Amino acid sequence: MVNWFGRRRRVVVPRLRSRGEGAANVNRVDLAELTPDVLRFLAQAAYVQLAVFESLTAALSLAPAASSKESIARAAELSLGKHRGIVAELGRLRADAGREMERYAGRIDGFRAATTGADWSERLVGAYVTAGILDDFFRRLATGLSDDEVAARIEAVYAAPSGSELLQAEIMVAIEADDGLASRLAMWGRRLVGDTLLIARSALALPPSGHPDEARLEPVFTELIAAHTRRMDALGLTA
Amino acid sequence: MVNWFGRRRRVVVPRLRSRGEGAANVNRVDLAELTPDVLRFLAQAAYVQLAVFESLTAALSLAPAASSKESIARAAELSLGKHRGIVAELGRLRADAGREMERYAGRIDGFRAATTGADWSERLVGAYVTAGILDDFFRRLATGLSDDEVAARIEAVYAAPSGSELLQAEIMVAIEADDGLASRLAMWGRRLVGDTLLIARSALALPPSGHPDEARLEPVFTELIAAHTRRMDALGLTA
Repeated sequence: MVNWFGRRRRVVVPRLRSRGEGAANVNRVDLAELTPDVLRFLAQAAYVQLAVFESLTAALSLAPAASSKESIARAAELSLGKHRGIVAELGRLRADAGREMERYAGRIDGFRAATTGADWSERLVGAYVTAGILDDFFRRLATGLSDDEVAARIEAVYAAPSGSELLQAEIMVAIEADDGLASRLAMWGRRLVGDTLLIARSALALPPSGHPDEARLEPVFTELIAAHTRRMDALGLTA
Repeated sequence: MVNWFGRRRRVVVPRLRSRGEGAANVNRVDLAELTPDVLRFLAQAAYVQLAVFESLTAALSLAPAASSKESIARAAELSLGKHRGIVAELGRLRADAGREMERYAGRIDGFRAATTGADWSERLVGAYVTAGILDDFFRRLATGLSDDEVAARIEAVYAAPSGSELLQAEIMVAIEADDGLASRLAMWGRRLVGDTLLIARSALALPPSGHPDEARLEPVFTELIAAHTRRMDALGLTA
């Protein structure tokens, strides 16, 4: 149904970049131009971290070993730490964090449910891919927050260790133990990207019409996808 | 195997107390007499905390509000902190924590699955009741560890805040909102006690026959049940 972000690799309009161009920023749209007001930003970013915590812990009952369970619990805890760091900013603004997050809970919970895999490795890849893209996204988006001090503290939250390396290690053990798994996980990873970018898109400050210039958004998502591709490469999987 | 009878400090005749005697300790059997060797103790205690973490996070997807989710995530994190404190002791002994815990994982995972409730409030009560009893149990059992320094550090782990008050607050909100819930949760709480005491029993140093003098164990469990009853009272529920 949704085709607003073209995953095509070559685009027709000259000002857009192809996926492979990495950090080149000719004619780029700065994501910071699309940063919503601070409450919207913080509430969504905070709830996303809580959702990542929940996704990771939902894998625990399928862990192949006690040590894997420990490792994923640790990764989950790192997301909860980010959540808490973001919620602290809501507290500084004297906002009711629960109420602010609640506005976005239904949508993000639906996203989480849709990106929960059927087994241990799918659940880990689900969290690895979605948290990878969304951390990248919110971190970039934070640079456009109107208050520089808030922006700096949020940057510090995202600069803290994430659980991605812990996930990567567990996923690679699973892949090594099962010949057919890599291709299944690569396919699963592709399916996750669309839903994840929709959640990212919904967090942007867009025109009231809800019909932004899609061509302007394209470069933003091209960058996110390029970073996602590198994360899949790190697993030995083709994005 | 374990020299159970050699660790006896008192002869216990006549020995049975009725359930209602609370903290009276005439002829009591000291739980410390039944403390297993340090590796067995630490591995089981550590894995139980990981199981509590898992039980609590398994409630998240059923949370009625973002703020409830946050609260339970925090409670889960406190259990993970205890887990980590106990694992640190395994590390001091240069034990492979994963491997040591693995010995008990199947049994404890089965217990966790059996004590996971069907909905939000049952899951919270499940964690509240089982973690309440088992934290109490392992804390008492730790006093019998042969190394006093280990025993002191483990005591500190259990003395740290637990999530029980966070759980209590959420459970009471649920009870207030639903007329029939209190009696259903009281029933559920009773069902949980049996399974929980079996897990506790399996962590004791018992004779190789596996057929200890049940009458000697009874006072131990009477104390655990008395404390459990007080925790149920705190919810306004009859144990």
